[in-house]
Amino acid sequence: MALSELQNRLANAIRGLAIDGVEAAKSGHPGMPMGMADVATVLFTRFMKFDAAAPHWPDRDRFILSAGHGSMLLYSILYLTGAPGMTVDELKRFRQLGSKTPGHPENFHTAGVETTTGPLGQGIATAVGFAFAEKMLAARHGKDVVDHYTYVIASDGDLMEGISQEAIALAGHYRLNKLIVMWDHNGISIDGPLSLSDSVDQVKRFESAGWHAVNVDGHDQDAVAAAIESARKSDAPTLIACKTTIGFGSPHRAGTSKAHGEPLGQEEAALTKANLGIEGAPFEVPADILKAWREAGSRGVSARKQWEGRFGALAEDLQAEFTRRMAGERPAGLGEAILAHKKALAAAPAAMATRKSSELALNAIVGIMPELVLGSADLTPSNNTKAKGLVEISPQDFGGRYIHWGIREHGMAAAMNGISLHGGFVPAGGTFFAFTDYCRPAIRLGALMGTSPVYVMTHDSIGLGEDGPTHQPVEHLAAMRAIPNVRTFRPCDAIETAECWQLALERRSGPTILVLTRQNLPLLREATADNPCAQGAYEIAAPVGGKAEVTLFASGSEVEIAMNARAILNQRGLPTRVVSVPSLELFIGQSDEVKARIIGDAPVKVAVEAAVRFGWDAIIGPEGGFVGMSGFGASAPIKDLYNHFGITPEAVAETALRRHNG
Amino acid sequence: MALSELQNRLANAIRGLAIDGVEAAKSGHPGMPMGMADVATVLFTRFMKFDAAAPHWPDRDRFILSAGHGSMLLYSILYLTGAPGMTVDELKRFRQLGSKTPGHPENFHTAGVETTTGPLGQGIATAVGFAFAEKMLAARHGKDVVDHYTYVIASDGDLMEGISQEAIALAGHYRLNKLIVMWDHNGISIDGPLSLSDSVDQVKRFESAGWHAVNVDGHDQDAVAAAIESARKSDAPTLIACKTTIGFGSPHRAGTSKAHGEPLGQEEAALTKANLGIEGAPFEVPADILKAWREAGSRGVSARKQWEGRFGALAEDLQAEFTRRMAGERPAGLGEAILAHKKALAAAPAAMATRKSSELALNAIVGIMPELVLGSADLTPSNNTKAKGLVEISPQDFGGRYIHWGIREHGMAAAMNGISLHGGFVPAGGTFFAFTDYCRPAIRLGALMGTSPVYVMTHDSIGLGEDGPTHQPVEHLAAMRAIPNVRTFRPCDAIETAECWQLALERRSGPTILVLTRQNLPLLREATADNPCAQGAYEIAAPVGGKAEVTLFASGSEVEIAMNARAILNQRGLPTRVVSVPSLELFIGQSDEVKARIIGDAPVKVAVEAAVRFGWDAIIGPEGGFVGMSGFGASAPIKDLYNHFGITPEAVAETALRRHNG
Repeated sequence: MALSELQNRLANAIRGLAIDGVEAAKSGHPGMPMGMADVATVLFTRFMKFDAAAPHWPDRDRFILSAGHGSMLLYSILYLTGAPGMTVDELKRFRQLGSKTPGHPENFHTAGVETTTGPLGQGIATAVGFAFAEKMLAARHGKDVVDHYTYVIASDGDLMEGISQEAIALAGHYRLNKLIVMWDHNGISIDGPLSLSDSVDQVKRFESAGWHAVNVDGHDQDAVAAAIESARKSDAPTLIACKTTIGFGSPHRAGTSKAHGEPLGQEEAALTKANLGIEGAPFEVPADILKAWREAGSRGVSARKQWEGRFGALAEDLQAEFTRRMAGERPAGLGEAILAHKKALAAAPAAMATRKSSELALNAIVGIMPELVLGSADLTPSNNTKAKGLVEISPQDFGGRYIHWGIREHGMAAAMNGISLHGGFVPAGGTFFAFTDYCRPAIRLGALMGTSPVYVMTHDSIGLGEDGPTHQPVEHLAAMRAIPNVRTFRPCDAIETAECWQLALERRSGPTILVLTRQNLPLLREATADNPCAQGAYEIAAPVGGKAEVTLFASGSEVEIAMNARAILNQRGLPTRVVSVPSLELFIGQSDEVKARIIGDAPVKVAVEAAVRFGWDAIIGPEGGFVGMSGFGASAPIKDLYNHFGITPEAVAETALRRHNG
Repeated sequence: MALSELQNRLANAIRGLAIDGVEAAKSGHPGMPMGMADVATVLFTRFMKFDAAAPHWPDRDRFILSAGHGSMLLYSILYLTGAPGMTVDELKRFRQLGSKTPGHPENFHTAGVETTTGPLGQGIATAVGFAFAEKMLAARHGKDVVDHYTYVIASDGDLMEGISQEAIALAGHYRLNKLIVMWDHNGISIDGPLSLSDSVDQVKRFESAGWHAVNVDGHDQDAVAAAIESARKSDAPTLIACKTTIGFGSPHRAGTSKAHGEPLGQEEAALTKANLGIEGAPFEVPADILKAWREAGSRGVSARKQWEGRFGALAEDLQAEFTRRMAGERPAGLGEAILAHKKALAAAPAAMATRKSSELALNAIVGIMPELVLGSADLTPSNNTKAKGLVEISPQDFGGRYIHWGIREHGMAAAMNGISLHGGFVPAGGTFFAFTDYCRPAIRLGALMGTSPVYVMTHDSIGLGEDGPTHQPVEHLAAMRAIPNVRTFRPCDAIETAECWQLALERRSGPTILVLTRQNLPLLREATADNPCAQGAYEIAAPVGGKAEVTLFASGSEVEIAMNARAILNQRGLPTRVVSVPSLELFIGQSDEVKARIIGDAPVKVAVEAAVRFGWDAIIGPEGGFVGMSGFGASAPIKDLYNHFGITPEAVAETALRRHNG
């Protein structure tokens, strides 16, 4: 068999399975796998360093299908190369409940899938995090242990999304030369030809961001191979612009938007297979071709064994540390360090902003947690993220622990997902809390995947003052609390801040948002050995002089206000307790028993938060009192704002009294 | 006085006021106004077509300060040119409560401010909407009536934000040649030199998007003028890359990040003024310079008068129609058209997806509302946004009413804000509801400003089926409902969909989100003459056989489920009513009386929504039952998903029965 015939048949195996998977599901996206089958064949049979049987080998090349709708491309390859669990039955159950072949690739379902993709632009931006992690890990453990590529297939749509610009600018600036993006330039979008809405010269665009960029015919496998060769030699990240035909091989749909997102249909599927020379029953792969693909799947066995040899030759403590970090296990001593820090805070109480408390907590942690890497989307002096002794990462040196992400909140968030998924690091990054809106698609994807970056979100309310309503979060607490598996903490003082950092860093199953003030707050807490923030809410001040008549609930900066309101109410003869609620959604998730105990049975309940009420009724009920915001903020000094919006101890006391008397 | 001296003194008037404003406020951003004073002087004294006394003249050139933190630049110019209400006292009250000079420019506070800016990237993307609106309006009313430029000042940070890519790709593709962006390339970010995090060649990047792009010394006023001249002749949008010195004139802070976001301080302010030759007391402008600026402010009087002459010569009905559209008044007959459509639906009841119902409603509306322009972020066949007879807009012809936004949800949302702000059109655009996350910063800004685009958000729940959890909204309803001044509607059938469209189009004070299904829903409603959706919730089915023991609350596709649960409960002897809740937050905002009447006093309350519970406690209370989602969805056919997640009539009935018996 001529080489070119073999190449075609290898690619057609992908095409055939993609057609069959989509037909069986009666829905899905055949066009992209058919169009990119040649490129993927070249990549997986000639370049990818992987051992299909060992999908967790730390030094494997990573492959990210940014155009996640083309998932049958990836599932076909996983099956063809022999990935664990990817049987032909799974291909037949494409897009069915509980299968390993969901509509978009989900890394938490399917071995061999590195990251969950689907929302366009996320894959390429997450890949930047993978490439970052590789550079950082190599700088620490050496090229003998860490030396792999990150390959991406991205679509026209990926490159239209704004986040792609943040991603490529980061990759270009940091010269992530082991990042190689193969762009599926099929020129077709759902609405029709791409030319309906786009005329960007992508090669020139990537070059403007410092990338190496080349054009290639995506159906000329040798040309693709040459492009990948050149990419691997480049000192910059590479874009390989692959001109392809969507739905390649389909007589009536190739090159049209009809090929994108629906089954070909029985008749066209048959015509396409005949056209391509694909024989046999659905899901059947000729034995010689399956054998060739399986050989590709084990091409990396010797590389893996050599790596294991090199790794085994390292000192045992180095091996153990690498293994610990890659497994995401947290270092010993974290809890002790936090407790010691809490005691030091209690010994010398001082008013400070929780963003400053966060910096002090970091100073106490960074020494014992070398895998913690910090950064900010160009708000370092505002976010207080640059803890003591952290050295900046630069394009020339990835040995540092501090990343200047630039004004790219979304890109930072997606890259933090990638760093977290790659393994070896716990990323934490800062911006203003209002700009969680910019990060939101990546935060959500992290929550779905269970990545565990920490977001250091400062300037958390009208308390930021003069910058005004564009920068003052009012609905962002509710919006974050609503995302499943995101944990949002808004600590009330330096001790709670330390406790919330501990919970954030111990968490390994989802993102944590730390919501921190710009303004100073007094120390309200003792340095207890336990961590009461772990249940989301707890009584921070008991009633005085009898059974509680009033319970005040508050988070963050408003706990101080609640404490002062309590003093007024106590004076007025109403025994009042205060419940600090650093994490509303964590508390809502506690057992009914725990909730009943902490909510208590005082007849009057009032919540205080410089934000909208939305969500608080779960604790205080529709009849409860609420002191907070009902609309957007305003530009003014902080004190004027709290008075203007009526978020004061007096207003809280008045609200409680009215309810008590009414 | 030599011309160059006059030019310097005109620019220094801006610098002096910016320094003084920030000093008085004890906070703010002096560096940008000082750096861009020369560019702004050229623009406003030589090019901008405006009459400061008539800030609402429809054919004025628009100026958008994308780098909104440099607000003192704009306020200084408004004062210097004599904008109504911008007194020197307002400059002295920079960043104070209730002033016309908030921290970031707010168009709803200050005459002469075209759009609210601050979150980086929004201004430049909103400007694309302004330029779009100008082209569309000119295509309808002719160049005699509509012929203006849209000028933007953007910062390094604006261009780092991903949304800027969506904006420039749109502007380049549609050849919005009357959009001219002056980039304040000062090379300084908050963390330090821009080179810490960025190395994009912006001129090349803009060229790759089809822009005309030139480099210029931002302190050479004649060179800037020549660049603007060339920009105005270009058949493409233009980037003028202005190399500037941040904090220009400050002996110790110019060119450093210290100049960005804090007062210079008394001493440095004095040194700076001496260095620049600025004399006089704070906020004092030399009489000859103020006079020259005021002349610049009235340079456009004759152009305005000529325009008024041309406009007055139009036929009266054309004048009236232009005036109506620019004022945002809705056309007569909208309510009647909707009612007729509702009656037609009721006359031939059919099951259909609400995205299809939305298309039918649009078909009934587009004829009588010519200012309604529709579009989609490349999901036209999924969003059903292309109503009957709509013609596509293309770079060659802006006379159409349908915009292919490409896969640029965020850019679409910001541009819709700009179209809405410009006046003359009501924009509506579609994408999947899950991708409200991508649009969120622009939706929020629209809510703050009170723009009134309509978002047509389809595929609104796990009901989208096989595409899986990345595309299935579960928290997005809560996240949208939490934003002040955003109205979210999730209609339950074709008649509610028509009613919600009516409310969306009648609204002139904030964005509306229509949340629509992919799956078919039966017609549940009669075609009543009133619009019960207007209060957010209403009883759609009364109890049978006695006083209600159970009230079921539901929105959208789950109203059908609640109706079927009601049938089960009625059979079991529990009189059950159903309340349809097309807009939870609108209902929460009703009077206590209205709420009490609609919520009723049935002892058991259960809410049903294929989304998270967050927010529903405001109606059902913490003790109420909820049938919905508690985490992310999954990839499977719709029926499997509803069963898998237990959102069924049986589960709802069971929940109610348990509560009734317990």
